[in-house]
Amino acid sequence: MSEKKAVILLSGGLDSATVGAIARQQGYRLYCLSFDYGQRHYCELEAASRVARSLSAVRHLTLRLDLNLIGGSSLTDQKLSVPRNKVSADESEIPITYVPARNTIFIAHAVAWAETLEARDVFLGVNAIDYSGYPDCRPDFIQAMERAVNLGTKLGVNEKAPYFRLHTPLIELHKDEIIQLGIKLGVDYGLTHSCYDPDDQGKPCGQCDSCCLRLRGFAVAGLDDPLDYQG
Amino acid sequence: MSEKKAVILLSGGLDSATVGAIARQQGYRLYCLSFDYGQRHYCELEAASRVARSLSAVRHLTLRLDLNLIGGSSLTDQKLSVPRNKVSADESEIPITYVPARNTIFIAHAVAWAETLEARDVFLGVNAIDYSGYPDCRPDFIQAMERAVNLGTKLGVNEKAPYFRLHTPLIELHKDEIIQLGIKLGVDYGLTHSCYDPDDQGKPCGQCDSCCLRLRGFAVAGLDDPLDYQG
Repeated sequence: MSEKKAVILLSGGLDSATVGAIARQQGYRLYCLSFDYGQRHYCELEAASRVARSLSAVRHLTLRLDLNLIGGSSLTDQKLSVPRNKVSADESEIPITYVPARNTIFIAHAVAWAETLEARDVFLGVNAIDYSGYPDCRPDFIQAMERAVNLGTKLGVNEKAPYFRLHTPLIELHKDEIIQLGIKLGVDYGLTHSCYDPDDQGKPCGQCDSCCLRLRGFAVAGLDDPLDYQG
Repeated sequence: MSEKKAVILLSGGLDSATVGAIARQQGYRLYCLSFDYGQRHYCELEAASRVARSLSAVRHLTLRLDLNLIGGSSLTDQKLSVPRNKVSADESEIPITYVPARNTIFIAHAVAWAETLEARDVFLGVNAIDYSGYPDCRPDFIQAMERAVNLGTKLGVNEKAPYFRLHTPLIELHKDEIIQLGIKLGVDYGLTHSCYDPDDQGKPCGQCDSCCLRLRGFAVAGLDDPLDYQG
């Protein structure tokens, strides 16, 4: 049995479920990490638990973060509303669902846990193509962050070559390609949750940025999304 | 009145109190940020409140972090003990009080808050001279992190020049120089707390790395430490 360990940033969404399946196929034992950060879409965390189980993760750790006290995003601040039907608007604009420095914070925690586990590999489902305009999903940022975390850790600093590697296998893929890859690897997308604005039963709205990207991905891939949408 | 805002990472220790006084003297309005991360030396947080008040901070925000769930440090893991009288041991060794990726996590949150406040400047009390061997206190790490946070944020990425700056005014100073500078700026070091292993009343041990560095700093500066030590 392989002793390669990987920390997977698992949101419960489509992308991170696919990344988990990729890492598992590469022979890693999976340590899944999720965050309870005051996000409105709390059912993401339930989805993350289902996905971690389906991936036979060795552990699934959920850390609380007080990002709601920092504010600045419609995902964590109840005073701001999540926009609907915005996906085809100006794509150069960074949307209000942007959470300040979110991936910087997530990666920092993932590397901290990886260091404790002596795991060199951290996997993230970031995507620079259908990325909704988030700056912390771009390759330049990931590379800069990989350099920083190696310089700022005990294991990273003691080695000539970088100890920690940030893997972003989806970064250049379109949503339909991600879905097709996941289907090949046996991902059950019915376990995942992508909506920014679900109803009380957790049913996705079908209209926010994230739902629109997901639905368009399934449509382009010629596949049915197994989720049950509102209305 | 100046509208320059700065986020100050305020631990409650001697260094960050000095950094706050430096930023205030430079005309910044101070937004102080502390973390409740399961550290044993909880009285640090009480010291941070006292110091924030003494600096006339506009706000003092304390965020909870689940670093104790990650483990790997004697400061957050109750199963590991804090070493005493180790300061003159092998200084190339990274001590057990190292917390995995701590400054990476702290800086990420500070930048998130700065972005919400539209504050460009983040001040940290890191020190590469009397730094107890922590890799995340070195200039190389700070520079790499500054680059990463600019690439990974909305405000950072929209500007040609870096929007966020990480200020580390103490990074090349010896402890006695830090103390002398702080005294000139009116810092009351009696409000601060530096010990890794205080007693139930919060009295510093005088023997851990942090106490030894502090006491040596006061001695070299030819000054008395106003704190009341154990025994």
